Amino acid sequence: MSVVPVELAPPGPLPASTQLNAQGRLRHFLTIEGLSRELLTEILDTAESFAGSAQGSLVKKVPLLRGKTIVNLFFEASTRTRTTFELAAKRMSADVMNFNINTASTTKGETLLDTLRTLEAMYTDMFIVRHNESGAAQFIAHHVAPHVSVINAGDGRHAHPTQAMLDMFTIRRHKQEFGKLRVAIVGDIMHSRVARSQIHALNTLGTGEIRVIGPQTLIPTDIEQLGVHVYQDMQHGLRDVDVIIMLRLQKERMQGALLPSEHEYYHLYGLNSERLALARNDAIVMHPGPINRGVEISSDVADSPRSLILQQVTYGLAIRMAVMSLTLGSTQSAEKET
Amino acid sequence: MSVVPVELAPPGPLPASTQLNAQGRLRHFLTIEGLSRELLTEILDTAESFAGSAQGSLVKKVPLLRGKTIVNLFFEASTRTRTTFELAAKRMSADVMNFNINTASTTKGETLLDTLRTLEAMYTDMFIVRHNESGAAQFIAHHVAPHVSVINAGDGRHAHPTQAMLDMFTIRRHKQEFGKLRVAIVGDIMHSRVARSQIHALNTLGTGEIRVIGPQTLIPTDIEQLGVHVYQDMQHGLRDVDVIIMLRLQKERMQGALLPSEHEYYHLYGLNSERLALARNDAIVMHPGPINRGVEISSDVADSPRSLILQQVTYGLAIRMAVMSLTLGSTQSAEKET
Amino acid sequence: MSVVPVELAPPGPLPASTQLNAQGRLRHFLTIEGLSRELLTEILDTAESFAGSAQGSLVKKVPLLRGKTIVNLFFEASTRTRTTFELAAKRMSADVMNFNINTASTTKGETLLDTLRTLEAMYTDMFIVRHNESGAAQFIAHHVAPHVSVINAGDGRHAHPTQAMLDMFTIRRHKQEFGKLRVAIVGDIMHSRVARSQIHALNTLGTGEIRVIGPQTLIPTDIEQLGVHVYQDMQHGLRDVDVIIMLRLQKERMQGALLPSEHEYYHLYGLNSERLALARNDAIVMHPGPINRGVEISSDVADSPRSLILQQVTYGLAIRMAVMSLTLGSTQSAEKET
Repeated sequence: MSVVPVELAPPGPLPASTQLNAQGRLRHFLTIEGLSRELLTEILDTAESFAGSAQGSLVKKVPLLRGKTIVNLFFEASTRTRTTFELAAKRMSADVMNFNINTASTTKGETLLDTLRTLEAMYTDMFIVRHNESGAAQFIAHHVAPHVSVINAGDGRHAHPTQAMLDMFTIRRHKQEFGKLRVAIVGDIMHSRVARSQIHALNTLGTGEIRVIGPQTLIPTDIEQLGVHVYQDMQHGLRDVDVIIMLRLQKERMQGALLPSEHEYYHLYGLNSERLALARNDAIVMHPGPINRGVEISSDVADSPRSLILQQVTYGLAIRMAVMSLTLGSTQSAEKET
Repeated sequence: MSVVPVELAPPGPLPASTQLNAQGRLRHFLTIEGLSRELLTEILDTAESFAGSAQGSLVKKVPLLRGKTIVNLFFEASTRTRTTFELAAKRMSADVMNFNINTASTTKGETLLDTLRTLEAMYTDMFIVRHNESGAAQFIAHHVAPHVSVINAGDGRHAHPTQAMLDMFTIRRHKQEFGKLRVAIVGDIMHSRVARSQIHALNTLGTGEIRVIGPQTLIPTDIEQLGVHVYQDMQHGLRDVDVIIMLRLQKERMQGALLPSEHEYYHLYGLNSERLALARNDAIVMHPGPINRGVEISSDVADSPRSLILQQVTYGLAIRMAVMSLTLGSTQSAEKET
Repeated sequence: MSVVPVELAPPGPLPASTQLNAQGRLRHFLTIEGLSRELLTEILDTAESFAGSAQGSLVKKVPLLRGKTIVNLFFEASTRTRTTFELAAKRMSADVMNFNINTASTTKGETLLDTLRTLEAMYTDMFIVRHNESGAAQFIAHHVAPHVSVINAGDGRHAHPTQAMLDMFTIRRHKQEFGKLRVAIVGDIMHSRVARSQIHALNTLGTGEIRVIGPQTLIPTDIEQLGVHVYQDMQHGLRDVDVIIMLRLQKERMQGALLPSEHEYYHLYGLNSERLALARNDAIVMHPGPINRGVEISSDVADSPRSLILQQVTYGLAIRMAVMSLTLGSTQSAEKET
């Protein structure tokens, strides 16, 4: 299936009602912005119920979404994210259909809305949407039928809310109370939907202090309005933090003038053990993956016990299970069925 | 897997025995031609039992085809058709394997028959075949092992029987008795396997009057032998019809001399609300999709309550479930098992 | 997902402990070499329990691997092998993820080990590995987490143990006792991982006599150390054998000087009915497929009742079910669960 690109709504602040139903329950999951602390906590608690207490002790296959059809609607390739959604869905006994849609192609000339209508007419229950334009998931959520839920799996520079929630889950598991934490996010803040969603989530959960660290050219000028502190060097930025979140460097941005060379970037903003020592003794290190060793992070740090990079992947399944089961409202109804 | 193209049998009239077993039950589903009214009605009734009474009320997952393996054997790409077969199969708990076979490629040089034998040897139970050559599904049905059923998902210009049956299902749901209906099929009749299968189905179900409307160059000269009335203009052709079926325009045919420009085509044969007014007040509009807005149909008609285009997609699942369960003879046996 | 190629360990003799756990049970299945006769027999017996007594009577869907996630990690394309693993896994109710990894691509620059760690972190239980470099599966097995099993689905020229075991299964089903058999393997022994694994399996199971037949340039000089007899012509090599295993000719080797033309190869080493008559009256003919008709084998022999080529495909499912269930140790635990 191919679609003609559409003019997408700009991702302005989203009224909470877009994501919530009349009872205030999650219907779509598009952005962290505007969701309450209670709701984020419910997502974390639900994920906790799936994750089990020990590493690798995810619940066995459960029939929560049996008979439901989940559609991975990826307008931008991402094996890793698509796979975790697919695994999470199958773990809950849903059927999964994958559509990789090339927005450039117009072979069959169908509009995006006609594609959506057609997929809805196939008795599908959920669209997992990834798109390189900000606002795409929101646009789709605005147009879907009442029985369909939409999950944003990353839209342009705008948001990546399941990534942010799995990061919150990781922090809560290893650090407990957000109120006492100093969290630093390092890298290209400007282009990062991950950072944007993390900042909203950290704020909503009442994080003690949020810092962003990166070159001036890659930090949005208005970011302090979100209550974060801006640092342009690691020496000051990392001091006494509890959590360090490294962002993935998008190498394609190197081509333009925005970024220095990989080598220089690592020299200035790479996380090595020397810099890690600036943080608190028990500081944890996170990264959304896949990591560029020797660019954002040194191998010894990436592979150290302080690094929770692989746990993040693991927790990602539990978070996606939580978000899917909450939006489909099936946690309750499915219990009866089984 | 790749195959060397084979010389396919020409799709002449097919003896009913090719599709039926000794008890007169469906074994393969290759073409509407030669099937009895009772059998078509049984397919519609079976689909009805899956479809539920309300829109979107398809039966939940059922174990009818549990343990069966369905192979999508697509020699011609079609995401939409493949997806509906896959969803229908999974809804009945079958396992599905997708093979997109490039007939042009001869990388591994295996013959089509060897590929079939190999797939059969993998304990597969059904081949859903799509091929750009007329007669392909029939050829394959002729050669498969006794335990394998073949469904034609479109072969060249020849037949697309599940599409025709979902169209019949749509008509029956919304118009009841075929005997009293005037049905018009509009577009490139010549190259349309959909039109050919629809005409056979409408005839077998005893439709009052069947009309085809299109440019003279795109209507087969011998079509009146099938009992249809030919019109070359919409003004006369649409008058007082109960059902309008628009065909999809294959834009690639524009290149040759067969078709006028898109603009001219729409001018002559596009369905807009003015022309729709020629039909009966309660006439319904159908299209196999994906639609070309502003080519075959205007947006206001496509999106009007008279249009059943999305319902057709929905009913397509129920029809494919019916055909798969009937050919695999599992409706009865599976009941015991559960 | 794409990976940077790694320097793989050379596939020297593998200590048995690499494939076995502390209790001497199969943990990985990487090569036949070093496994005991008892263990090979256990694999064959387990497969027998899945295969049923009649052709095509594989067990219905069983819940042995329910809740397990199997990853097809194919660095080298192979629809046929991937499909049989996928079907075998689904037959045991496992979830299956397919990854076709292009080793040439370095788009995202992730290392192989990081890819493995990430997949492990997604609660996956088994990697089915196919790679064009010898030792790849062994390298991966060496690095996976304790809860993950690795199955070698073919690595370079080294080994293809599930193919060899399905061949042993075929021989045992049709010939019973290995001790009394003369088995000839015909073709490009040098480059064949299949031949290498077959020879180890035949030796371990106590085969009476193993012969290899092929042009001198395609027979490793040290092969007699494995206890096989070398023949360079069919006339002597096939005399009085019970089993003839034809290897697939890799046509890409024709380009170099190693192989004569297809025509000449068939003239010298193709199996036709005249040559088959040199073997015992009840000799069986095998081939891993896909066959090149008129290159390795004549059509009349391939399609004769003496040919077990399609049965091999069938038995391949039972063998893969056996190996997967044995390595995941789930045969026992799953019984309780059901």
